[in-house]
Parts: sequence; structure tokens; C-alpha cells
Amino acid sequence: MVQTKKLKLFNDPIYGFIGTPNELIFRLIGHPYFQRLRRISQMGMSYLVYPGAHHTRFHHALGSMHLMTKAIQVLRLKDIEISEEEEKGLLGAILLHDIGHGPFSHALEGFIIDGVGHETLSLEYMKALNEEFDSALDLAIEIFNGKYPKPFLNQLVSSQLDMDRLDYLKRDSFYTGVTEGNINSERLISMLNVVDGNLVVEEKGIYAIEKFLMARRFMYWQVYLHKTSLVAEQLLIRIMQRAKELMPNQSILGEDSTLYRFLFEEKEVGVNRDRLSQFALLDDIDILAAIKKWRFHEDFVLSKMCQMLLDRNLLTIKLKKSPVQPEKVEAKLNSTSGQFGISKQEASYFVFTGEISNNTYNQQEQEINILKKNGKVVHLLKESDALGTDFISRKVTKYYLCYPK
Amino acid sequence: MVQTKKLKLFNDPIYGFIGTPNELIFRLIGHPYFQRLRRISQMGMSYLVYPGAHHTRFHHALGSMHLMTKAIQVLRLKDIEISEEEEKGLLGAILLHDIGHGPFSHALEGFIIDGVGHETLSLEYMKALNEEFDSALDLAIEIFNGKYPKPFLNQLVSSQLDMDRLDYLKRDSFYTGVTEGNINSERLISMLNVVDGNLVVEEKGIYAIEKFLMARRFMYWQVYLHKTSLVAEQLLIRIMQRAKELMPNQSILGEDSTLYRFLFEEKEVGVNRDRLSQFALLDDIDILAAIKKWRFHEDFVLSKMCQMLLDRNLLTIKLKKSPVQPEKVEAKLNSTSGQFGISKQEASYFVFTGEISNNTYNQQEQEINILKKNGKVVHLLKESDALGTDFISRKVTKYYLCYPK
Amino acid sequence: MVQTKKLKLFNDPIYGFIGTPNELIFRLIGHPYFQRLRRISQMGMSYLVYPGAHHTRFHHALGSMHLMTKAIQVLRLKDIEISEEEEKGLLGAILLHDIGHGPFSHALEGFIIDGVGHETLSLEYMKALNEEFDSALDLAIEIFNGKYPKPFLNQLVSSQLDMDRLDYLKRDSFYTGVTEGNINSERLISMLNVVDGNLVVEEKGIYAIEKFLMARRFMYWQVYLHKTSLVAEQLLIRIMQRAKELMPNQSILGEDSTLYRFLFEEKEVGVNRDRLSQFALLDDIDILAAIKKWRFHEDFVLSKMCQMLLDRNLLTIKLKKSPVQPEKVEAKLNSTSGQFGISKQEASYFVFTGEISNNTYNQQEQEINILKKNGKVVHLLKESDALGTDFISRKVTKYYLCYPK
Amino acid sequence: MVQTKKLKLFNDPIYGFIGTPNELIFRLIGHPYFQRLRRISQMGMSYLVYPGAHHTRFHHALGSMHLMTKAIQVLRLKDIEISEEEEKGLLGAILLHDIGHGPFSHALEGFIIDGVGHETLSLEYMKALNEEFDSALDLAIEIFNGKYPKPFLNQLVSSQLDMDRLDYLKRDSFYTGVTEGNINSERLISMLNVVDGNLVVEEKGIYAIEKFLMARRFMYWQVYLHKTSLVAEQLLIRIMQRAKELMPNQSILGEDSTLYRFLFEEKEVGVNRDRLSQFALLDDIDILAAIKKWRFHEDFVLSKMCQMLLDRNLLTIKLKKSPVQPEKVEAKLNSTSGQFGISKQEASYFVFTGEISNNTYNQQEQEINILKKNGKVVHLLKESDALGTDFISRKVTKYYLCYPK
Repeated sequence: MVQTKKLKLFNDPIYGFIGTPNELIFRLIGHPYFQRLRRISQMGMSYLVYPGAHHTRFHHALGSMHLMTKAIQVLRLKDIEISEEEEKGLLGAILLHDIGHGPFSHALEGFIIDGVGHETLSLEYMKALNEEFDSALDLAIEIFNGKYPKPFLNQLVSSQLDMDRLDYLKRDSFYTGVTEGNINSERLISMLNVVDGNLVVEEKGIYAIEKFLMARRFMYWQVYLHKTSLVAEQLLIRIMQRAKELMPNQSILGEDSTLYRFLFEEKEVGVNRDRLSQFALLDDIDILAAIKKWRFHEDFVLSKMCQMLLDRNLLTIKLKKSPVQPEKVEAKLNSTSGQFGISKQEASYFVFTGEISNNTYNQQEQEINILKKNGKVVHLLKESDALGTDFISRKVTKYYLCYPK
Repeated sequence: MVQTKKLKLFNDPIYGFIGTPNELIFRLIGHPYFQRLRRISQMGMSYLVYPGAHHTRFHHALGSMHLMTKAIQVLRLKDIEISEEEEKGLLGAILLHDIGHGPFSHALEGFIIDGVGHETLSLEYMKALNEEFDSALDLAIEIFNGKYPKPFLNQLVSSQLDMDRLDYLKRDSFYTGVTEGNINSERLISMLNVVDGNLVVEEKGIYAIEKFLMARRFMYWQVYLHKTSLVAEQLLIRIMQRAKELMPNQSILGEDSTLYRFLFEEKEVGVNRDRLSQFALLDDIDILAAIKKWRFHEDFVLSKMCQMLLDRNLLTIKLKKSPVQPEKVEAKLNSTSGQFGISKQEASYFVFTGEISNNTYNQQEQEINILKKNGKVVHLLKESDALGTDFISRKVTKYYLCYPK
Repeated sequence: MVQTKKLKLFNDPIYGFIGTPNELIFRLIGHPYFQRLRRISQMGMSYLVYPGAHHTRFHHALGSMHLMTKAIQVLRLKDIEISEEEEKGLLGAILLHDIGHGPFSHALEGFIIDGVGHETLSLEYMKALNEEFDSALDLAIEIFNGKYPKPFLNQLVSSQLDMDRLDYLKRDSFYTGVTEGNINSERLISMLNVVDGNLVVEEKGIYAIEKFLMARRFMYWQVYLHKTSLVAEQLLIRIMQRAKELMPNQSILGEDSTLYRFLFEEKEVGVNRDRLSQFALLDDIDILAAIKKWRFHEDFVLSKMCQMLLDRNLLTIKLKKSPVQPEKVEAKLNSTSGQFGISKQEASYFVFTGEISNNTYNQQEQEINILKKNGKVVHLLKESDALGTDFISRKVTKYYLCYPK
Repeated sequence: MVQTKKLKLFNDPIYGFIGTPNELIFRLIGHPYFQRLRRISQMGMSYLVYPGAHHTRFHHALGSMHLMTKAIQVLRLKDIEISEEEEKGLLGAILLHDIGHGPFSHALEGFIIDGVGHETLSLEYMKALNEEFDSALDLAIEIFNGKYPKPFLNQLVSSQLDMDRLDYLKRDSFYTGVTEGNINSERLISMLNVVDGNLVVEEKGIYAIEKFLMARRFMYWQVYLHKTSLVAEQLLIRIMQRAKELMPNQSILGEDSTLYRFLFEEKEVGVNRDRLSQFALLDDIDILAAIKKWRFHEDFVLSKMCQMLLDRNLLTIKLKKSPVQPEKVEAKLNSTSGQFGISKQEASYFVFTGEISNNTYNQQEQEINILKKNGKVVHLLKESDALGTDFISRKVTKYYLCYPK
């Protein structure tokens, strides 16, 4: 009749309920580093296109952990040995895999701490938490950084079929309402197996994998790289750049703000424990609050970009299959310079080009391997009718041009 | 405050509610020819694999009609003219597009009335109903058989993007629980347009079309051609063949039964009004009742096959990429002949080979055309990164061998 | 890497996948007695109102078993002891709880085998299977008939909160599309606990229970007792009665048919092993095939009723809060007798009255008990604001009158 | 082939797609006043309990408008006259019905602008927009404030069965994953009708209404008044109060911030156009940014409360059926004062009592009226078996006590 903490349940519109499988997980979820993920949106600026897309890294981390419990269950039923300790490690690693994300996730990645990506930061946070939790995360860290001797454990956390992707595709599809991205995570998991220490997919799962890769491709082009999100994220980045540019001359944020220190003070090199705990104070709110303040800044370029973002009165964006001709950009720069009464250098905040690219299946990454009924293991691309052509692994690039309406 | 018949609503787990858009539709639904579709399952024997797949042609016909009302709405908003009369024609044509299906839909198609497919029969039923309904279906018939001068109306009823497919993929995915087949019918419809009288898809819809074709491909290989359904449908056909073979010597069905007359009496050639109304008396029940009766027939072959189907104690089936070698079949025939104490000719009811094939996109059929932003219309395969390779239109063939456990 | 039978999965649109938790369950599902449930519809004639309601007892039995695995998991996490053997018993008992249902489930219950209900028959089938499976069902039988010393095990199979109800409400709501009946089975299960050997609901679950009882009430009045289903089921029963009445004079079914033997031959008393295996040959198909045949019977009353049911051209039905006045019935009898040219006795097949009643919560049944935070156990009605009035346990009765259009 | 603005579609996970029915609606959605609703969460602090509950007033406003288009369609099919102009008015009124909400919706209502509720502000914003849009909202305003001669139009916007409630219950249920609150909005709408200018529900809709009221009751007690959300909202309010209290002595927000001006500067009385546009600059971000800043404030009380909210390390809360005894509060005040080393007045920020109450059905509000089949109109409570008792309209009150862990 004891009601243990194990049973602490989170409501999830996708999986129904998400439990907390052990005491360590329960305590990690309660830690301020993890609670902060409640204030970091999963999909950056996508809510400007898909008004339901306000879900957070917090929810995604719980969801990935939930799928991991399913994967462990399936593999054990297939007589793959996963010890209690390894289970704890897997759950810890997947729960914390994104804990290093900063404000607006990918949009500002590498900008707030120069050139340091979220994976590096996740690892650093795990190490810091490991000290706090008396080395309870030793195995989680080994699994996360791929040093543990059973490679499939790492592959469950980070590979082309990891629990991360299986959750985020499903979750992003759910909250955007883009049902085309709705993958059947449970079926995919039920087809996992392990051969020679590596994760494989049973042969009958080929169609499900193809479907999964196509759903992923769909989500990339229709959602993640949607041109309106793209232009919004470009504005977000350019707002930060303009603020930095203006900084030598004028104070534009309270000097006691954490964001101020990251953006404008002398940079330290690398990541130390102190910078980690500072970084953990940042989230979407700091960025949005700065943008709301700068909306009234005296610099036209800065305030105009902020207003555009806040009122969703964005730049025009055109997507092309080939790079934009320089004379076209030049013409737009000139007209914008005239329209707004600003220099051409300033106009380049509003007129710019860029490219986006995606390949559905990355052969450079860990391959997806198929376990055939006769016991042989082959590469996915060899087995699949649909994928055995180059399109799925071909990188597709598109080019864009942005300018004011 | 008048509550008109127009508002007669059908509950549908997929679309919520399906209304009856006009009086003609209301009366057609009530006709015994249409009510009979309640006793014809949409997916033949698939419920032996997917226990939820008991939905009927009746429900699918309502669903397709519902999508047609959406398509009409979308096209009119884009200033495509569809008159009141044309609307009535479209709705009649789509509601009745499958009315010619016989017991177990495709499984026994062309068997009960020799060589006559369901489309021919649907047209004949429409003509018969047209007489009964004082020519109210004139336009529906013209649209259905492609003789109406606006080709897009026919294409909404019958093409690679018709309302039929948009409903059945979604519906079959829903009832089987195979979420991978869940297409976003509403999004696809919202991207339809008309150029020069032909249905086109707006450029931004390309990813949605790719996704739709991949979902269709998935459903074919994982569901419609699932090897267990396949072997069950083969048994169904072979039961009917054996019954015919035995017939000259013994009475095996009450001679007053409708099925008896179709299977065993002198065949008329072609389809006349009288045979139509006879055929309308047949549905899944007649076949299943015969199988339940024959389960106790003195002929071993017949009764054994019936028992296999009823108790889902099916033959073993193996799928291969190349044709089965004759000596392998020969060996199985011999062992089965021995095992059951029957002749080799009789054993061939239990040991047989065959092939299945499917191409995701059929270039021989009406092409899917894309309307580009610059106003040009191009073929889908030219525009799509994913489909611009041959795999999607390549016919894939698999070979199977069945034999007793 | 072994892929055991344990992992045999059924696709379920509701729970995603349903596994087969042990070898015994796997073999029970394969037994012809259980496979027969694929041909017994869960909701009788309701598909005439809700076209999606073609799901079967087979699917419901699997679903209930799935919920039972969840309940076992939840209770064990709360340190309630359930041994491996008890688990096997629970799963066997719930899987087979409805195996005694005959054609059209409740509609013809007690008619085919005079006065013997489906629960009695389920128990008899369990005993028969127990012999076949070498006493593997001993515990399942004890749990099912309430003789096992831990009452909560029986209560999980049969009580006001059993897994049976938790599945059928959810499943019927799903397939009919009546979303109001969609209960949150997982939440209800997560709130179960055991005190002094009896099932209780934790205090925080009160609103969920109230909601569950209201959903059940909704389903009764809007779906199970829908007046159109009601009139269809009445026709079904009356068709059988008329057939019996005609029988002394004329053969109306092949004398070798199983249904014939049950309906028309000298009745044995009680249920023996032989009658059990005969009864197991009956399902919805036998009834529908008879109706299809009788549609052309020379008796006007019989054929007319069959045609009404098959073409969904039903009687008019009026629901009232008080009993129908005899003179009203008399008048309808007279007019029908005239309209059809039949005797008044014959007219009474088309003109009749009856009553339906339901109480949402039955205090005579096992009470639902609430476990308060302070450890006390109290009756639901004492604790609930919403239910602490009489309406929820009051029996509501409605009266109906049917007659031809 | 023209693709008009009318077809601008929003993806909605609930309804699929939401269109923009006319040009005015399209322009209103684009207005900064409306875009601001993207930054106001629908459910205040509920995401601390239900991690999916990050949806916004923006999305809810679109959803309510979508349901209004359905209601108009249904009523017109029942021959209720609604002119083009009235349709435009209805859609404008429902789109803007919540535009006056401030940061965190209800949680801080009446606090930022003293004693002025969101309905008053919504009306003022409508008037301001009406000037900007050349009186296009005249009718919307009349309908909104109940002055238009056809009362049912106002009732569709604001009554116990308005489109507002029909959307928010469904939407909140969806995003929290609390499926018990999932009402069938479409069915409820299909049962609306109008008698003597007033909205009624057709008799057959009674069970649906009962179900709707029970779902609403469930959502109130399980979600909206969830004790954890409650304590979080109390902390939010108390943070604002403490900030105000500290203000005379120290600057605690940049004096150029909009929030500063609302909270700390001399208050104007009432609402003028200038204050409206100032208020429109406020949203959840301003509040959260202040809390993030105050987390490091030197005042222990303020910083502690901010930390509690940000790290979700909340106060303990106990719910009771009777008021908390003063001596219990006194004891907690003393121990907290000791624990934190603060005065008893300061301790009262952490130790406090309060009450919450809700009645499912409010007879003081506009009654729900039922249209019987015989044409009479009666009050809901007269007709309903379930509601014809006092519980549904009885006000239930609960009492709480909060204190530090």
C-alpha cells in the first residue's frame, strides 16, 4: 500500500503518462539545471508558423526517457542483457542529453558561448551533476560519450535511430499538428535488436524505417526549415549581432544581467564550472526580454528588427534551387537603404542571402543496420527498395534571399 | 428551427461527423443496394492480421463523400467554378464509386461474375439507380465514366489523388492501427487546384504528395499485401474453386441459395438488370456461411481449407525476391500428398506459388501534375527530389510459396 | 537475439500494441474457441447507428488482458504482492471472461441455450479448456468464480471497476466515434490500490471515478440503449421467435445446420461438454445467413421482418417517460393488421411496447471503495460531491412503443 | 486559380486546420494587439503540473473563431437567419473576446490595472481597433456587449455554452493530456438551435450537455484548481505584492520598463487610449524577466519566492473541507519566522490560507434552455435526470493552507 516516488507521473498528451523509473531520475528532474529546460522551447521560432509549437526541452527530455524504458523492455524480452546499473546509466544519459541547450535551442547555438555546441555543454553539465550526486552518473557519462564497451547503449542515446529522434519527431509532429511527421515510435522500438554489441533493426522493420526516414525528411523541409521560421531565426541572430556591434558605444542592457555578461563582457576561453552555472541562468526569457526592451532602442536597425519579430511582421523570403545572383542582392540593398534612410552596411541586416540543406539519411553517421532472417547483418541502403537509390542520402541544398516587404 | 434531413449525421471516428449534403444523397444511402455495403468488409481477410480491420465499404463510401465536400469547398474558394448540378454529380459519383463490389471486395473480384470487375458493376448499378431516381444521376454517371467535359471532376473521383484513395488510406490506417499510413487528407485537399480543366497540386504541396505516396507504399507492403492476409485470401479463392470442382457430383449448398446460382448454374454472359439485382443479394455473409457449412463437408480438401480459415490455422507462407524453384514446390507437393493421404492434384490446393507486385506511383495512370509558383505545370517526377528517381515508379515484385505446417 | 513468442504483437488502434505475455495466453488465443470470437460483434446491432462499430469480442478480450498487465504492474509498484502464478491466473481469467458469448452477444443471450447466460458458459468453456491445457487454468477459474482467497484478484476481473469495463467503454467509444465515452483507463488504473485484500481507489482518484461513471451513463443512454439499436435488436429477437413458431409446420433451415439443432430440436437440459462444442460452432454468421435466407420465406411476417433488418428500414420507435397506454397499442395493432392484411396476433410482431432501464452506479453490486489519505476506507457515495446524491444510483426507466412506418 | 488570402490556414493539432474566413479577420490577426497574445499563456502556471500546457491565448482565440464558423453553418442549415454582416460581427467578437487579457491571464487579472478585468479591457481594445478599421467592428462590439437585438448572437460569444468554453475545455484537455476534459464540441454545436431569438439545445442533446458540464467540473477540480498550480499562482501574486512593498525604498526594475510604470508609478484612474497601448506592451515575458532578475535581489523574501517559482521548489499546500484553524496558521508563522530568520509579517508571504470554490452550473448566469420535441422550451435542470439535483449548481468550497517545506 506504500505509494513510492517511483510512481510520480507526468501527464503527457502523447504517451498518456510518463513515470519516473528510479530515485536518481526523480532527483535529477527536480534539479534547477533540469527545471530550467521548462523555459527553453523545443522548436525555437517555429511557433510563428505553427501556433501550437510551444513545447519545451523539458517535455522532450521526459519523452525520450519514456521511450528508453520501452526499448530496454523490448531488448530484455529478446534476451539482450542490460544490467540494473546499465539501465540507470541509459536513463540518466537520455534524460540529460539536451541539458546543455541554451536559449532558443539551435537558433543561437554557438553564439552565446562562442563556438561551443550543446553536446559539449550537456557533457559538462552531466559531469557537474555527477559530482553533486556522488558519482551516480558515472555510467551515464560513459554511455553518453561512447566510451562504454557495449556500443548499442550509446546508440540508443545517439544514432540515426536513437530515442532522442524517436521522441522529437513524434512530439514536434504532435504539437505542430503536422500529422505527416507522426512516426510509430513503439513499432520501431519493437523491431530493435542487438548483434555483436551493435543496435540493428530486424528485417521486417524495413518499411517502418523507410517510413521513419521519409517522415523525418518531411519534417525538415516542411517544418524545421520552413521559410518563415528561417527568416525569424535569422532576425533573432541578427538582433544579437547588432546589439553586440552597438555595445562599445552604449549600454543596452542592465549591466547586472546574465545575458549582458555573456554577450558583452570580456570572454573567457572554454567552459569552466562557474561559467556553466552562469549559463544555466539563461533561457528564452532573457532573450525575449532583451528584444522587448530593444524594440524601443534609438538605433533604427536594432529596434526595427525587434519590432518585426515581436509583431510577426517579418521580412519577405524567397527560396531558390540555385544561389541568388549578386546583382539582385545589390539592388535590394540599394532600395532598402533608400527606403529606410540607412547605410548599405546597415541595410545588410535586412537584405541577405543564405542556404539551407538537409540529407535524410547520413551515411557518414553511424549506419542503420538490418538483421536479416538468415542472421546476416547488412546496411540499410543495401536492403531497401526505396532507399537503395541515392536520393535519400543525397544532400539537398536550397538558397534564400530575404528583404523587407 | 426546422431540422431538415440535410442534417442527418453519421458518427465517424475519423472525421467526427459526416453529414448528408442533399436529399438525393440521403435517399441513395437508404437504398438496399447501398445498405448492402454494410455487409461487405473493406479489407477482406486483413482482420486476421489486424483485429480492428472490420470496417466496411459502407463507411468508406460515406468517408469519400465527406472528403469530396471538402474538396469542392476548397476549389470554390480558389474561384474554380463548380455548379450546384456538378456538385450533386460529384457527390453521387463518389458515394457510388464502389457500389459494384461483391463479397470480400477485391479477394473474389471477377470470380462470382466471371471476369467482370467492380468498376463495371458500379457503373451498371448507377445506371439502374438512375432510372429509379428519374435521371437524377445523369451527371454523376458522366463524371464517373469520364465523359463529362471538365476532366478535373472525374479526377476527383478517380485518379492517383482521388477522394477514394484519400479516404481509404486514412481509414485503413486508422482501423488497423498502422499509424504509418495516416495521411493528412485535409492538407492534400487544401493544395488542390485546377489548370486548364485538370486537377493539379500547388508547388508547396510536393512534400505532402511524396509523403502520401510513401504512406501508400507502406500500406501496400505492410498491410494490403501482408503475407498472412495473402495466404488467407488464397485459401478463400481455393475454397471456391474446390467447391466448383466438386459440384457436378454433389449438392453442396442449398439450391435455392443465391450464391449457388452464381457459382454453379449455367452462366449467362454479361450483366443484365436481373443479374444485377441478384448480385446485390450477395455479401460477405453468404461466403462465410458456405465456408462454415463446408467445414463439415466429406471432401477432405474442401473441409480442411475451411477449417484452416475459420480457426486461423493457416498455411505457412514464405516470401522471396526471386521465383520459387520448381523442385522445391515438387518436394512440398509430395510431402503434403503423403501427410494428408491425398493425390498430388489435391495437394496442389495446399501447396502453391504466386507473385505479388506493386508500384507506388504509376506513370501509366493519370500523372500527378504540379502547379509551380510561376504558373507553369510540370509532372510530379520532374519536380520531386525524392521521387525523381526510378524507385517510386518501379514495379516491385515478390514471390511466395505456401504449404501446410 | 532470440525472438520469443512472448513478443507476438497485435496492432491495436487504441493501445498501440498488445503483447502476448506468456506461452499459455499465446496458445489460448490460438484455440478455435477463442478464434471464434472474431465472428461475434461486440456491440450487436449498434453498427446500424454507428457505422464504425464492427469491432469484435476477440479484440475486446485482448484489450482487457492488456489493461490487466498494466494493473498488475501498478499494484506491484505499490508493493501489493501478486505472484507469477496469480498473474497467469489473472491474465487467463480476463482473456476468457467473455468466451461464453453467443451470436450478437447480449441481444440473443439466453435465447439459443434457454436461460443460460454468457457468464455460466464462460465458466464452462474455461473448465473444458482447463482439461485440454493440463490444469493450467486452475487458478484462473478460482479467480473468475470468486473462490480464490484474495478478493481483489476477482475484483480486477469482475466488479464496477474491472478491466472488462475499462476496456469496453474505451473501445466502444473509440469505434463508434462517440468521444464522450472516452475514459482514461490508464489514469484509473494508476489510482488502484489494495486494502485488506480488497480493491480500493486512492482518494485523489475521486474525480476520475465520477467522470468514469458519467461516461458510462452517457454510453448507456446514447449508445447501448440508442432507440434505433433497440428496435433492431427487438426485430432480431422477434425473427427468431417467429421462426420457432413456424417450425412445427415447415422446414426453414437446412436440418444439418447447427443453428437448426439449437433452435428447433428437442432441448437437452443444462450444458454438457458436447453441447458446449456445438455452441462453439455458432456465431453472428449463422444468424445473419438465416435472416438472409428467410428474407424470401413465404411467411409474410418472417420475411418482412428480415427485409426490415437487412435494408435498415426499421420500425418507428417512440420513447416515453411513462408506460404506453393500452388503447394506443390497440389502435396501432388494428391499423397494422389492416395495412399488412394480417391477423392481430401477427401484427403484434410489428407493434409492441417495452421498457429499458439503467442505473449508473449499482449499490447492490460490489461497492467502489475509496482509500483516504488518512488510511481510512469509505464508500464512494460518502466521499463524492457529485455522486453523494441519489441520482447516480437511482434506476431510470424509459418506455417505448414500436410500430411500422 | 487565384489563391486568395481567405485560404490562409493555421495548423491546429485539434481541428486540423483553421482558416481565416474573411479579410477583416485576416487583418485583425496581423495586428500587434492580437500578435501579442502569442506571448500570453492560456493556463498561467499550470505547466508546472502539466508540462504540455504551454499553449497561448492566440491559439485559443483562433480555435474559438473556428468553432463559431461551425455554429453559423449549423444554425443556417436549420434556417436560422444570420446575415453576412452578422457573421462578420460574430467572428470579430469571438476572435477578440480575450484580447484584454494581461500577463498570465487570470492569475494577475485586476492587479496590473487596479480592479479592471479582462472583459472591460477586451471591449476597450475592440473600440480602439474599430477606429483603426473604419468602424468595421461596429456590429462585433454590439454583439459582444449584448446590445444587439438578437440575443443568441451574444450567447454564442458569451454564455454557459459559448464558443469560448467549447474551445478552451477541449484545448486545455488536449495540451495537458487530461483526456477526461475532452468534450465533443462538434456534437454540442450540432445540437444548437434558436427559439424566440435565444440559443437553445435540442432535447436529444441533454446527455451531451450533462457530459459537458461534468467534463468542465472535472477540469476545474483536477486542472484549473490543481493545488500545485494554485500555490504557484499565489507565489506569483505575492512576488508582485512584495515588489510593490519594497518599491518606495529602492529601484528594483529599470525605470524605463513598461511593467515598472504599471506597478510603481502614480496610477491614473480608469482606462484611456494611451494606457491601452501601454498595456498592450505587457505579456508573460515582462513578468518572468522581472522574476528572473529579482531572484538575486537583496531582499530575502522577494528573492526566495522567485527562486521557488523558477526552480519549481514550491510551498507545501494542504487542501481541507473546512477553514484552517487560526492556531495552526499561527504555529506555522512562528516556525517559518524562526526557520528563515524573518519577521512574522514577512513570514506571512510564505504561510497563508485561502479558499477556492466552483460550481459546475451557474443558475445566476444565463440558463441553458432545452428545446423539447413538442416545441416547448424548458430549463436544463428541469429536464436532466443527472442535473435535476442540487449538486451540479451547488457551490463547492475548499480551504487551503500553504507553508514552506
